Amino acid sequence: MIDVQEKLQSTVHELHGPHPADPKVIKRLKNIEGQVRGILRMVEEEKYCVEIMNQISAARAALHSVGMVILKRHVETCVADAIEAGGTERTHIIDELMHVLSKNEK
Amino acid sequence: MIDVQEKLQSTVHELHGPHPADPKVIKRLKNIEGQVRGILRMVEEEKYCVEIMNQISAARAALHSVGMVILKRHVETCVADAIEAGGTERTHIIDELMHVLSKNEK
Amino acid sequence: MIDVQEKLQSTVHELHGPHPADPKVIKRLKNIEGQVRGILRMVEEEKYCVEIMNQISAARAALHSVGMVILKRHVETCVADAIEAGGTERTHIIDELMHVLSKNEK
Amino acid sequence: MIDVQEKLQSTVHELHGPHPADPKVIKRLKNIEGQVRGILRMVEEEKYCVEIMNQISAARAALHSVGMVILKRHVETCVADAIEAGGTERTHIIDELMHVLSKNEK
Repeated sequence: MIDVQEKLQSTVHELHGPHPADPKVIKRLKNIEGQVRGILRMVEEEKYCVEIMNQISAARAALHSVGMVILKRHVETCVADAIEAGGTERTHIIDELMHVLSKNEK
Repeated sequence: MIDVQEKLQSTVHELHGPHPADPKVIKRLKNIEGQVRGILRMVEEEKYCVEIMNQISAARAALHSVGMVILKRHVETCVADAIEAGGTERTHIIDELMHVLSKNEK
Repeated sequence: MIDVQEKLQSTVHELHGPHPADPKVIKRLKNIEGQVRGILRMVEEEKYCVEIMNQISAARAALHSVGMVILKRHVETCVADAIEAGGTERTHIIDELMHVLSKNEK
Repeated sequence: MIDVQEKLQSTVHELHGPHPADPKVIKRLKNIEGQVRGILRMVEEEKYCVEIMNQISAARAALHSVGMVILKRHVETCVADAIEAGGTERTHIIDELMHVLSKNEK
């Protein structure tokens, strides 16, 4: 399963080429890294659990939001290209997308 | 709204005292910090978006799981104590819990 | 596992007695039943998939919201009583609550 | 906003034509309708709240799962066609998809 997955991923990646790293995504991820470090500090400093849980929710929401940015670009480029390529490329990229989406929602 | 919230939190905190920091929670949060740094590197190295999205889902799931550990202890200690204290303590802690849970699920 | 679960549930139920059915919850559930029937009709009438998906999201949100009402009352009554009873009642009801919450969020 | 949305939807719908109703989706939705009716009965019969919450989670999961079937077909047909059509069709359908996905996950 993993092999098929990896093979597919590399094929798709070859087809489209990598996306140049989005500076906004990088900036947001740096913020999230800081948020997680902040949560760690809150736990070490024995802050009130509800405050910690609220920060965890915020970090999860921020990660989700970055994921949506990456997902959008994925659909606009990789998925769109594979759909235009047709055939197994098209089937595979849609299966892969559905798989990502089903994980994403948990 | 924030003032009421903060006032409640400090009251509850005084009532129960802080929880000693759980070493397992700290360890897990350090791992999550590493995961986020890994995601950052994947973006910089222009990895395939699906791999990045999978790592984002994994980091979110890990955060959620730490949140559940903290939530459980919160219920066992702060919520349980406030319920036993009764009165407004009890009403407030349950309102606060419902508020946290409604955020948590997004 | 199921036996333990069921035994616990019946014990808890005996302890607290059933909650009288909340008319607002019943009204909301009737609305949700209507929403689901509406979705069914949209599928049969071959409506645009995005409209159908939006209605599915709305029905899921409505179910979630009813679940939160029931959860709140559960915490206020069953959980509170079991916490005051202490001992295994307390441990069990919290384990059960965490189990419900972990399912609820998917 | 709604007008734009509706206009887009009707355009897309005209482009692709409706999908013939999927008998499996209809069957599943009938089951979900039955599940919701079952939850209603459980509330009326004053069943244990945890059992009711579990059934609510199950109904939400079933709705989500039907939503994923509809989403997959939407991507395979409407989204794929609009991507091949290009231009504003392509931009619009992707925006709409992202909008649906962001709602779907709550």
